[in-house]
Order: sequence, then structure tokens, then C-alpha cells
Amino acid sequence: MTTWDARETIAAKREGQEVPPDEIERLVQGYALGEVADAPMAAFLMACLIRGMFPSETRAMTRAFIASGQTLDLGGLDRPVVDKHSTGGVSDGVSLVFVPLVASLGLACAKLSGRGLGHTGGTIDKLESIPGFRTDLSPDEVRSQATDVGCVIGAQTPGLVPADGAVYALRDATATVPSIPLIAASVMSKKLAVTSDLTVLDVKTGSGAFMVDTESAWRLAETCLELADAWGRQAIAAITDMSQPLGDGIGNAIEVAEAIEVLAGSRRGRLWELATWLAAHAVAAALGPSLDDALARARAAIEDGSALERFRWMVEAQGGDARVVEDPARVLPAAPIRKGIVADRAGVVTSIETAAVGGAAVVLGAGRARKGEHIDPAVGIVLRAKIGDAIQAGDEIGEVCARDDSTADEAIRRVLAAITLGDEPVDAPPLVHALLEGSRMER
Amino acid sequence: MTTWDARETIAAKREGQEVPPDEIERLVQGYALGEVADAPMAAFLMACLIRGMFPSETRAMTRAFIASGQTLDLGGLDRPVVDKHSTGGVSDGVSLVFVPLVASLGLACAKLSGRGLGHTGGTIDKLESIPGFRTDLSPDEVRSQATDVGCVIGAQTPGLVPADGAVYALRDATATVPSIPLIAASVMSKKLAVTSDLTVLDVKTGSGAFMVDTESAWRLAETCLELADAWGRQAIAAITDMSQPLGDGIGNAIEVAEAIEVLAGSRRGRLWELATWLAAHAVAAALGPSLDDALARARAAIEDGSALERFRWMVEAQGGDARVVEDPARVLPAAPIRKGIVADRAGVVTSIETAAVGGAAVVLGAGRARKGEHIDPAVGIVLRAKIGDAIQAGDEIGEVCARDDSTADEAIRRVLAAITLGDEPVDAPPLVHALLEGSRMER
Repeated sequence: MTTWDARETIAAKREGQEVPPDEIERLVQGYALGEVADAPMAAFLMACLIRGMFPSETRAMTRAFIASGQTLDLGGLDRPVVDKHSTGGVSDGVSLVFVPLVASLGLACAKLSGRGLGHTGGTIDKLESIPGFRTDLSPDEVRSQATDVGCVIGAQTPGLVPADGAVYALRDATATVPSIPLIAASVMSKKLAVTSDLTVLDVKTGSGAFMVDTESAWRLAETCLELADAWGRQAIAAITDMSQPLGDGIGNAIEVAEAIEVLAGSRRGRLWELATWLAAHAVAAALGPSLDDALARARAAIEDGSALERFRWMVEAQGGDARVVEDPARVLPAAPIRKGIVADRAGVVTSIETAAVGGAAVVLGAGRARKGEHIDPAVGIVLRAKIGDAIQAGDEIGEVCARDDSTADEAIRRVLAAITLGDEPVDAPPLVHALLEGSRMER
Repeated sequence: MTTWDARETIAAKREGQEVPPDEIERLVQGYALGEVADAPMAAFLMACLIRGMFPSETRAMTRAFIASGQTLDLGGLDRPVVDKHSTGGVSDGVSLVFVPLVASLGLACAKLSGRGLGHTGGTIDKLESIPGFRTDLSPDEVRSQATDVGCVIGAQTPGLVPADGAVYALRDATATVPSIPLIAASVMSKKLAVTSDLTVLDVKTGSGAFMVDTESAWRLAETCLELADAWGRQAIAAITDMSQPLGDGIGNAIEVAEAIEVLAGSRRGRLWELATWLAAHAVAAALGPSLDDALARARAAIEDGSALERFRWMVEAQGGDARVVEDPARVLPAAPIRKGIVADRAGVVTSIETAAVGGAAVVLGAGRARKGEHIDPAVGIVLRAKIGDAIQAGDEIGEVCARDDSTADEAIRRVLAAITLGDEPVDAPPLVHALLEGSRMER
């Protein structure tokens, strides 16, 4: 390959051929170094999206992403290390509960997380609504807090998988995001660049997820697990419901407050159910008890306050105002305007356009339409109505927390438009569609 | 479309939807103006290549190319104006013969032509081997020479279809060249930006053509004719053989000398046959005689010297040394080294890897591997062996004209490797596979 021409690699992919791994690594490496320009890389990505990718190609891309930067070594801790990733959704506060919960159950969890984009929120943005909370941690800080506190949630550090960041930005600009192998390579390169004993993947499906249909979610989960297998990593992937917001709150401080209620044992519901169920699976896989036993331990850690206590330690360790645990309403920023979302007619909630509800939160300023935009931590939506609920005209099914009247009214309009009411009773959707295990799992 | 996002246009194409014409025009216009970056345009082009294009999309792209620059008005001449385009091949000297020939038969022909790239030669490069010959003509010069001399061959002027030039450069860099609708839009935008009464397309097929198989050539011809129809232009498209070099000479001065021999009536063969046949079709379509009558006129114009005389006028008008007509060998540059191509074994020529023969000429310096490279007008190849010929070991089947020994030997090696010899007699391939006429043709 002394006279390698990127165009030959692109042409092979264009024709649906299997591109040799070394050519993909060379292309990605060249792109990260600025030797391959945006345009040929964009053409290659579009060809990957349309033609699909062979497993060997997805592995090569993942390998190239990892090789482009540093890795984070969390080996040698006295507890098994678990990592967790969600493909993104609306009111997806699972990490806020899961991370301190598994830490309280004897695991270490060091989660590097992204910011919200589009209709989906980001764990980092949410935590930064706690005054003082720092997410720009150095690799040493991540490692030492994982050791001392047992849990840490930081921003994706720029030294890890920089090629993934560059390629993702290019995909965002060129309509080449929705490719299952490209998403899998992006997700798993970030996970594989950090050592862990178990990776828990939460693949969302439904109207608020990137994988709208369950079959796509299933394929993404399988592709991610194949990559975990190839690296010899234990991993499980749950395919979970995002046909409606997971919790009630949509917005940064609002979701932190809701997560604290869950951790404090004062709130049940779907967020509580999914976070404890995933934590139980992590404990069962990493520490060996039965799933029933692990689930009982997870619920107990919430009831006895140890999960919340671990959350407090994490907030303190990362410089946040730990009084948020006792009095979220006083510590977290609040929006000046609160308006009820009032049903304009009666019916049964048959479906929710969840991405549109997330979009309504973006209108308020809780999310960003484009990368790098400022967000407002105080604003957001509380939507209590869930699929299957019967509501009456005039019922207050939620509220918006807004900076001004005009965005409040627009958000209310959008939320109401996103909810379909019918005349017949409907069942609530299942919370978990499936659980897939990588072949490295020993059970 | 006040908040048009190029990514939505790209995504629609990616999913195989029909993109509205105004969005394609906006994308191409934005690209030409630098408002749309290389990367999204490259992703769009790859999606067009893989998904194919709807006729409305191909028309919109053609329209956007034309609208990006000036047009050249050749209306109001006292003769019908014919234009001609070849999709490119090896030893394709048809334009050198066709253009003065049709001028001598009562048509005007103003041909704007490209330079050679890869294994294919370019008419402009060939003519510039005549000392003094100018191809960088202004639109006024093109028009006035078409009026006074009846024929002119100039370089594609930068003011015409600049967006096509920019998009073509991007396609070259991103492995998105081989798309029939994109090729058709590129070819026809250049033809449609110049007024003419008839466009003659020579779509090459075979081992030396971009359209290797006849079916692709047929589809390209049809797509080009559909565009001609949409603009109300008369057009015909011949699908002609490029499974072997058309003439014997491959190289710039060498091909000019061969064309002069054809124009002078001292050489027959496939170049003579195709050029007169295409000229006869042009005369029949534009002036009304039967094809047989037109063919007789074309042959007579060569026999009586009027075609060659017209060539001389054109050379003189464009500043070239017109003595080339009487004594090509004295006027044209000659390479210092001539070596015979000697068959190393006996057999019947069953096939020729024509692109590889063109590649051998590039090794000598007769063509350019990349756009903008310098070429050597003197060097090249003469290959007399044709498909079906029986040759003996030791026969000199051609020669190379080279700047040095090492390139000469390498070119000879490549030419011999490109020729397959068999034991059984084979028929020579047909010169013309098909003639397609646009629906605007009145016959």
C-alpha cells in the first residue's frame, strides 16, 4: 500500500465490497491527522451508511477510533468496574440513579458521558445544573474518584478517541448519522477506550429514540455486543422503551430533582424501575448473586439511603453543592414562569411523539438544536400523563418551566400536539423489550 | 424554504426519495458560491451515485450547472450549428476529422473541448501539439471564427458552467465519478450552455471507455438525450466501439498526424469510417439529404480536399503553423527515441485492454495521471495490431515514441501485456453498436 489512494478505498465501499481493515484504519487515521480531507471521508461515510458495513469493517473503524487517542486505565481497583451507556432519549435520567446505586452495591462506576443534542438530553448537562458541579475531569481525577468514592461522571475527555469526535462532527454535517455500524463504532470505541469489567448498554427504541423501531435497536445492540466480544469485554444490552418520556421531567435541573427523589426512595415509576433493574443486572453479572437477589439489594440500597449517600459523595467530590440532596428546590436553579399543561379534550393517551416533546424542551432552552449552543438549566417540562392514562378536558397533565411567556406557550402547544388521544383503553408499553448478552458473559 | 438545511436534502437523497428540483438547485448554487462545504456536497454526490437519480433531479442539476455561469450564443449564423461530444477513449481522433469535415459540408461547428485525463486523450491537448495553436479563445473569438471559418475548437471557457467544473473536481477527489446521471448532467450542461441546432454524442463502450459495458453506454446515451429533449434540443447519440484504440496512434502529435492523413484522403480505417459516418448523420439531420447522400458528400469532401482545406483554415485562424497540413512530420514535435513493439509469440488478437494501452501512453508522458499535469506532445504509441489480426512471433505490431529508454521499455511491456492472443480466428468488433435519436429529431 505504498501508493494507497483513498479513492480506491471509497470506491470499493461504494461498490459494496469488503474493505480490508488496514485501509479503513489508514483512512480514519489520515482523517484524524488532517491528511484525508472532509470530502472523501464524507463520501466514504455515506457509502458505509447506504451499503452497510461488514463486521470486519466495523471492528477496524472502532480500532482506528481507539488508536487515535489515549486510553483510560481503571484496572487494579478493589471492585469490579462497570460502565454504562444509553443511546439517548427524553427524560432519560437512568445514569443519575444507576451510577451511585451500583457504587453503593459494591461496584465501581466511572462514566464518561456526552452532552445533549437535539431532542435528547445529556447527563453532563443535567449534573451541571447543580451549582459548582465539575465535569471536566482529568484522567487521574476520574481514576482517583472511582477508587475513593466508587463513582464518577465526567465529560468525555478530549484525549480519548479524538477521531470519533471528528468523524461524528462530520457525520452531523453530512446527514450520515443514522448508520447502525457507524453508531456502534462510535459508542463502543468510547467504552473500549476505558477499561471496565462489564459494559451495560441501554438501547432505546420508540418515538423518542434514534432507533425508532425495535428491530433497528436490536441490530444496534447486537453490533455493539459483537464489538465487545471482539475486544474480550463482558457486556449486556437492554432494549428499552422510549415510546414516551421515561420519567416525568424533561429538562436539566428538573431531571436532577426527579433522580434525587428516586434515589431518596420517595418516588417510584418507570425511571426507578429501569434504573434498579439495570443495576441488578450489573450486580448479578459482576458479583454473582441471582438476579432476584441483586434486585432486592438494589431496592434496599434505595430504601436504606445508601444510594443517595453515594450520590452525595459524588456531588461533593466533583465540587457540587451537596445540599441539593436534602433540598433540591432550594439549590437547583428555578425558572421564573410556571404554566400548567391543560388537556383541551378528554380521551385515553394512545401515543406520544416523544421526540416532539423533547423538541418542546429545546424551544424552552433546555436542549440545544446545534452542538455548542448554550442551554438553560432551569427550564423544562413536567409531563405526568403516560400512555394508557385516561384524562379529562381541563386536567392539568403537566407543566412547563420557562424563561418567558412566549416560549412557555409554544412549548405547551407542542406538547399537546405531540399527544394522541383515543377512545379505547390501551395498555402501557412494556418498559423492557429484550435483554441481550455478549458471548463473553458467564452466567 | 426560508430555513433550508442542506442535511435534509442529503437525507432525502440518502433514503432514495425524489428531491424537489429547487432543493437540488439550491444545493449546487450554494456549493458554487462556497456556502455549502465540500463534505455535505460529497455526501450528496455519493448518495446520488448509489441511489441513482430521478429524471427531474438530473434536469435540476443540469439546470443549476448552466445557471452558474454564462452561456455562449451562436444563434443567427447563416448555417445550422452542430456540436459534438465524445465520452472519451483511446486514439479517439474523431473530433479532429469531424469538425472541419462538417464545416466543409455546409454546417458550422464550434466545439469547446476538455483536456485528457487518465488513459483518455483530449482534443485540446492534441491540437496544441501544432506549434502556435491557441485554444484559450474568448466567447467572441469562438463566435466570430464559427462565422468566418465555419469551425473552431477551443478549450472549455471558465465562464461557462463553473459549478460543473467545481463539482467534477469534487467527484474526482471522492470516487463519485462513475454515475450515469451525474456524467449526463456534466456533459449536457456544457452542450446546453452553447446554442446549437444539433448535438452529436459519441458514447464510447468497451475496455478503453468509461462505460465499459454497452448497457451502461446505452443508459448514458438515453439520459443525455432526455436532457436534450427537455431543453428542446435536437440530438443524436451513437454508441461506438472502444474495445480497442480507434485509430493506430495514441499520443498528441501522433494523433494529429493521423487525422491529417485521414482528412487528406490518404488513410482509411476505423477513424475515417466513424468520422465520416457521424458527419453524414449530422448533415442528414441538419440539412435534410438522405443518409446515403450525406455519406457520399462526406467522403467526397475528403477526396476533393475541401475537408483538409477547412482544417488548414481552422489551424491558421487559431494561430497554428498551417504547414502542418502539407508536412506534419516537419512541423509536429518528434520524440527522440523510437522503438518497435515486437510480438513475442504468435496468435490471433482476441482482446485488447484498451485502458491499459492508454495507461502505457501516460507512462511515456502523453497523458496525465492527475489534472493539471504537464504532458509531452511528441511521445506516444502506434499500435497497428487490431482485434482479429493474426500475428507472428517477431512481427513489429507497432512502435513507441519516447523521451527516454526506460519509459519506452515500460510502455512496450505494458502494451504487450494488454494484448491477449488466442488460437482461433475472431471477428473484429462492430464499429457502431447503436444510434439513438432524441424525440426532438424530425426525420
